[in-house]
Amino acid sequence: QMLEEVIAALQPKVLKNRRILITAGPTFEPIDPVRGITNRSSGKMGYAIARAAREAGASVTLISGPTALDTPYHVNRVDVMTAIEMRDAVMSHISHQDIFISVAAVADWRVANASDQKIKKNKNGDTPTLEFTENPDILASIAALPDPPYCVGFAAESEKLRQHAEEKRRKKGIPLLVGNIGHETFGKDDNTLILFDDTGTLELPHGSKQLLARQLIEQIAKRL
Amino acid sequence: QMLEEVIAALQPKVLKNRRILITAGPTFEPIDPVRGITNRSSGKMGYAIARAAREAGASVTLISGPTALDTPYHVNRVDVMTAIEMRDAVMSHISHQDIFISVAAVADWRVANASDQKIKKNKNGDTPTLEFTENPDILASIAALPDPPYCVGFAAESEKLRQHAEEKRRKKGIPLLVGNIGHETFGKDDNTLILFDDTGTLELPHGSKQLLARQLIEQIAKRL
Repeated sequence: QMLEEVIAALQPKVLKNRRILITAGPTFEPIDPVRGITNRSSGKMGYAIARAAREAGASVTLISGPTALDTPYHVNRVDVMTAIEMRDAVMSHISHQDIFISVAAVADWRVANASDQKIKKNKNGDTPTLEFTENPDILASIAALPDPPYCVGFAAESEKLRQHAEEKRRKKGIPLLVGNIGHETFGKDDNTLILFDDTGTLELPHGSKQLLARQLIEQIAKRL
Repeated sequence: QMLEEVIAALQPKVLKNRRILITAGPTFEPIDPVRGITNRSSGKMGYAIARAAREAGASVTLISGPTALDTPYHVNRVDVMTAIEMRDAVMSHISHQDIFISVAAVADWRVANASDQKIKKNKNGDTPTLEFTENPDILASIAALPDPPYCVGFAAESEKLRQHAEEKRRKKGIPLLVGNIGHETFGKDDNTLILFDDTGTLELPHGSKQLLARQLIEQIAKRL
């Protein structure tokens, strides 16, 4: 914590007096009391951005799905499990925020027929069938608010990153979308980021997630 | 590690010269390159048992699904993701083992129609359908070997624990099955265990997973 404080003190205060809301990690969508659907997101990128935003002087709230990470120093963390819980937590913290960064890998679907009891194997070898319901698009809902904060999205695509990312940015109606190299980065400590905005694309050089997080915060600060 | 060494040195060496194979944690069954089905197992109980077995003088191999836990000191750890990978790792380490403890929360089913590419939302709001295939029963396969090690299973049931656990023990053909209070214990540091064997049931008093792990190891050593 001493070291974190020293590092924080040395960073340029480009987000001084700004309030920033960040989502991070996966969501967990229950199938039954013990099983659920999740994804390979470790939460590292979102936590690194929360840390960088705080180093840059911002007041940071982090809405986090289940991760094994420590809360960055001086960051207000709210834990959630499902996409619906994350949406509710975001909505209840969104007022007076200057920036919203949606880094969490929110499940596109939840299980429509989740069971109250653990689903058991039966002797006939029958297998369960899962039906899905689409989850709310948290980022698009925030971007569609009457007076939205500056909205930043993340895209992790396993194919045609550039095309999907720009499509996604326009569909969600957000000024900045950050693409990464998809599932290859999950759990890793470094990453490559590509920024998509109205002016085109900007590729940040490959580096540690913490270094990239600082560069991203600088880029966001420039655009406010 | 110094402290772990001191604690280990003080434990009775009830498993001296014994070889023990333990599985722990959840498995992760891919839906596509980023999503998958998992469960709430944190791996804490299995890791505590691995630590206790090593403290008791055993040579310990731990086959672990994805967890955020540190490897216990002097334990040989093998990481896997899926039930099939866990089965293969267990099979390749099973010879010359004296004891096999299956603590992992292995997925009963894997996704039969997993996708090579990330499944995307489409404009019609169509939702995917998941088909399942039953996974191999690792513990039953080991118990059915010609000269099996002493086999211990775990049961986490959300209803009628006592009835299901005894049923499970007989179906798998194992001498000892350990029941716990199901999903209420996931991720927690303490637990309650009930032992089911031919002589009946034995309830270990509620305590930390590490304390219970030591008591379980004592109980197993008595039964060899």
